[in-house]
Amino acid sequence: MPIYQAPLEDVDFVLNEVLDAGQLAQLPGWEDATPDLVRQVLEEGAKISEQVLFPLNQSGDEEGCRFENGVVRTPCGFPEAYRAYAEGGWIGLSADPDYGGQGLPHLVNFVMEEFICSANLAFGIYPGLSQGAANALREHGSDDLKRLYLPHLIDGSWSGTMCLTEAQSGTDLGLVRTRAVPADDGSYRVTGTKIFISSGEHDLTENIIHLVLARLPDAPAGTKGISLFLVPKFLPRDDGSVGPRNGVACGGIEHKMGIKASSTCVLNFDDATGWLVGAANKGMRAMFTMMNAARLAVGMQGLGMVEVSYQNARAYARDRRQGKALNGAKEAGSAGAAADPIIVHPDVRKNLLTMKALAEGGRALAYWIGLALDLEDRHPDARIRQEAGDLVSLMTPVVKALLTDVGFEATNLGVQIFGGHGYIRENGMEQYVRDARIAQIYEGANGIQALDLVGRKLPQDMGRLLRRFFHPVAQELEAGRDDPALAEFVGPLARAFGKLQQATLLIATRGLKDPLEAAAASTDYLRLFGLVALGAMWLRMAKAAQRGAAQLGAVQAGDTPPGDGRLGFYDAKLKTARFYFAKLLPQVNPLFTAIAAGAGTVMALGEDQF
Amino acid sequence: MPIYQAPLEDVDFVLNEVLDAGQLAQLPGWEDATPDLVRQVLEEGAKISEQVLFPLNQSGDEEGCRFENGVVRTPCGFPEAYRAYAEGGWIGLSADPDYGGQGLPHLVNFVMEEFICSANLAFGIYPGLSQGAANALREHGSDDLKRLYLPHLIDGSWSGTMCLTEAQSGTDLGLVRTRAVPADDGSYRVTGTKIFISSGEHDLTENIIHLVLARLPDAPAGTKGISLFLVPKFLPRDDGSVGPRNGVACGGIEHKMGIKASSTCVLNFDDATGWLVGAANKGMRAMFTMMNAARLAVGMQGLGMVEVSYQNARAYARDRRQGKALNGAKEAGSAGAAADPIIVHPDVRKNLLTMKALAEGGRALAYWIGLALDLEDRHPDARIRQEAGDLVSLMTPVVKALLTDVGFEATNLGVQIFGGHGYIRENGMEQYVRDARIAQIYEGANGIQALDLVGRKLPQDMGRLLRRFFHPVAQELEAGRDDPALAEFVGPLARAFGKLQQATLLIATRGLKDPLEAAAASTDYLRLFGLVALGAMWLRMAKAAQRGAAQLGAVQAGDTPPGDGRLGFYDAKLKTARFYFAKLLPQVNPLFTAIAAGAGTVMALGEDQF
Repeated sequence: MPIYQAPLEDVDFVLNEVLDAGQLAQLPGWEDATPDLVRQVLEEGAKISEQVLFPLNQSGDEEGCRFENGVVRTPCGFPEAYRAYAEGGWIGLSADPDYGGQGLPHLVNFVMEEFICSANLAFGIYPGLSQGAANALREHGSDDLKRLYLPHLIDGSWSGTMCLTEAQSGTDLGLVRTRAVPADDGSYRVTGTKIFISSGEHDLTENIIHLVLARLPDAPAGTKGISLFLVPKFLPRDDGSVGPRNGVACGGIEHKMGIKASSTCVLNFDDATGWLVGAANKGMRAMFTMMNAARLAVGMQGLGMVEVSYQNARAYARDRRQGKALNGAKEAGSAGAAADPIIVHPDVRKNLLTMKALAEGGRALAYWIGLALDLEDRHPDARIRQEAGDLVSLMTPVVKALLTDVGFEATNLGVQIFGGHGYIRENGMEQYVRDARIAQIYEGANGIQALDLVGRKLPQDMGRLLRRFFHPVAQELEAGRDDPALAEFVGPLARAFGKLQQATLLIATRGLKDPLEAAAASTDYLRLFGLVALGAMWLRMAKAAQRGAAQLGAVQAGDTPPGDGRLGFYDAKLKTARFYFAKLLPQVNPLFTAIAAGAGTVMALGEDQF
Repeated sequence: MPIYQAPLEDVDFVLNEVLDAGQLAQLPGWEDATPDLVRQVLEEGAKISEQVLFPLNQSGDEEGCRFENGVVRTPCGFPEAYRAYAEGGWIGLSADPDYGGQGLPHLVNFVMEEFICSANLAFGIYPGLSQGAANALREHGSDDLKRLYLPHLIDGSWSGTMCLTEAQSGTDLGLVRTRAVPADDGSYRVTGTKIFISSGEHDLTENIIHLVLARLPDAPAGTKGISLFLVPKFLPRDDGSVGPRNGVACGGIEHKMGIKASSTCVLNFDDATGWLVGAANKGMRAMFTMMNAARLAVGMQGLGMVEVSYQNARAYARDRRQGKALNGAKEAGSAGAAADPIIVHPDVRKNLLTMKALAEGGRALAYWIGLALDLEDRHPDARIRQEAGDLVSLMTPVVKALLTDVGFEATNLGVQIFGGHGYIRENGMEQYVRDARIAQIYEGANGIQALDLVGRKLPQDMGRLLRRFFHPVAQELEAGRDDPALAEFVGPLARAFGKLQQATLLIATRGLKDPLEAAAASTDYLRLFGLVALGAMWLRMAKAAQRGAAQLGAVQAGDTPPGDGRLGFYDAKLKTARFYFAKLLPQVNPLFTAIAAGAGTVMALGEDQF
């Protein structure tokens, strides 16, 4: 049976020793969000994740959702778990207290998203979409809509969806055909069919609030003619109670590779009553409020998958005995055992360390962006708000694509460590692979994230966004340049950063002349960017570990002795940093080579030559 | 619905224009195996793969095997398909005519394995294990055993298994506990429990012949005390008919990530009657006859997965319309279409080209080794036989691990090209991912293949095996050095080959002092080796394509114009070669860097620091 324990010690290290998240308590409205309070909240979050959500993860996968007569039944235990989750206030963790939210920083919710995704990815999709819908509504909805819908979305009695995709319109939302016709009372009648709608129908809440992309009768073609509508499953009465059924029905659910406990629905809108959210024909903008948050949340899914798969692979590698250590049997023979635990084998260690380096590096990266979300939202200094917002904007595609790609890679390493036992369903490791796989696809496939990075984020305002990443990395490198204790990290990072700068220049120069050049380089560039970002995080973590160890009195940064407890923790951090710089960061080189090789070989074949 | 068409044109190119497989018809007993006959056989093989096996692939996955009261039912249609397959003589395609085989070269069977794996991987496991059992028996069995069992295994009325794994003994076969006690009549009584036994029980044949690793009462500990036994499900009578039930029973089947139509069984042997195959305590050697063939066959599974996933991704990319070409809409607008087929997008092309380069390069590599198997078996010159055998031995772990790793990577690219539709079961793409995943694990997990390569194959006889790969590559590079038409391929390959040589030297030097160093480098080294091997194949294919195009009169090697038909084929080959050298081969560099970085960072952490 799989295991999961929320990684509170590492979370604490990242929040307080790497990122100084305590600064959030100085921002208006978050005075209570001290490290102590945040730790208490996260301890509670760990409990519900471990004790309520995690036990339903495997059974949810085995059972899946069922569709019968237009109704979707979630797996056994899901409705009860959802109720406990909603009643605990977790959906509104960082939502506006005016509408019933807990009003905590986004960063706290970020951490909680990691826990939920590790514990039960499919479950997490239901409340996650409600949070997204609530955010979009809060930002773009009228006061009437907000008053009527937000409290329900935040207390979890109602849930939300994002209805974008249609059969002919996936990545290309300009092809959306669903139409909305104005009615006399200021509402609209929405008609069309949406597919792949997560949480589109289920039995967890008394109402479901769909945010739907559709076209007004006079709308221009393409994405400029798309508007966003709120279409509830049941029309609410003015007192907030649930009224008559609206013209939207679930036509079926998909049978998927994974996240089987999350319902993926075909939704048929037939003259359904809806209300415009935001301005007419500006639906894409409103949808992107939701989409950007969702992209970061999907990145957290990748991170959550790395962590839980790592925990299980580590436990198995310590327990499973096969073969003897190559440098002389460790326990085999001597202690009467016929074989050593497989954690003695270098290749098993390499796979485990890869997972560990990606989990911890990914965590630091994701939380850094979570912190920036909060600074963007509340910092009193407008310049800092803008800079933080620029960083979030720049890094959203990186966090989404990088963390979901490594999520998939790491869960596969987890299976490999289990060997044949990893391929057997009851051991749980292959479910992580199947569940992790979707995160590379939805909320903008990772190839689209890469296009967003090179086509939109890089050139924006003459590279203004880019500087929000390049400057701090350059500063960190500069600051560490003459510190001998940091040389082993600063050197490799500086070289990789140099490759990233060169690649950026290449793409900017060539992309100006030929957009195909930028597009052909995009996925390699995003990965290169991501590896450098993880490297920057590992440098910061190494510094924090050296500082922490020094404060504990063990000084001698760089070769603190291994040990138990906190010193052992810092020591492991430094060793994992070394592994990252020696074994993983060099992957930037062929990415640069492939980018430099240009689009020629990619575009040369005629379509019939494939 | 997925599609599959056996890639006969490319097979023909590799066999006849790259490898000169026609030479096989000059070897004794294969006089009939002319290119014409081989083509005819493969056309028939394509038919049964496409028309009989492929249509059962998705339904077999959905239905899976069922275990009821000790009996395993394969999915609907499998028994009939198996009968057609056996009656067509496909199981004995390259088996000895003395026992009813078709007596064709191994290479023909290799090609057929690719087709079967593309068409229906789970199905292919049943006859594949029979072939393996027949080979082991033919090599190590007594004349009595051969006379009684081989004809049935070859005509498919009986099937075979390999019973190695036990709960406590997977990779480490020295831990096997199943025991065999001699009986008075020269037979043995076998008792123990085996797990993960593919085809261990099913309803396709009237008997199942288990080859079982077990220990004699006086056997030394570890792998030196393991013997191989033949244990039939039903004891045959002397006339070859099926007699009474033997003491072996299926205790259950596993529920797996994929290959669900292949039964994976727990087998309980309880005083089952068996016969020794080969010498007492020499079971590992006999088992390796089977295992080596099985490893190559599993490599073909990887190849088959790349090919079929590629064919489907290509068809989808030509058909699915999303977005407009970045260099000006191709069809969108002009022809009234709102979007272009996604094959215009660089990142989609890059993914398709990666799949294509891996399928075609992998095919050339695998068939090269298939040809060597035949030269080893029949060439009149003992030196050539030995050299071919050395090459097979060296490349077996590379073919197994590389082709199954790229099999998994490519099927995931296939899913990505389909986007959300790739995640939906009915579209078939995610099944390829799930099915391909096992091939990285069974018949020796890929980490074990890497240890075999660095720990056994490299040092063997002072690097004698290694020369069988290094010499031809060096010669090919030397021969192409001054040919301007080849410069674009020779240059990158020479650099990558230089990295491989350096890495080999590093590992040999360091590994002598510390085996952990070799082990820590092993998986990176195998991948580096594999990428160079694919590069060598791409150089040979590029030369063959230039030659072929020149013979067609279009000369101007290196930039033959695109075109239809055969010229277009050669042109696509050259373009794909360019893609491989520009975009994929550079991945050797960080592998080299990681190898050079040594084992230190991998071994540094204490077991409690993970």
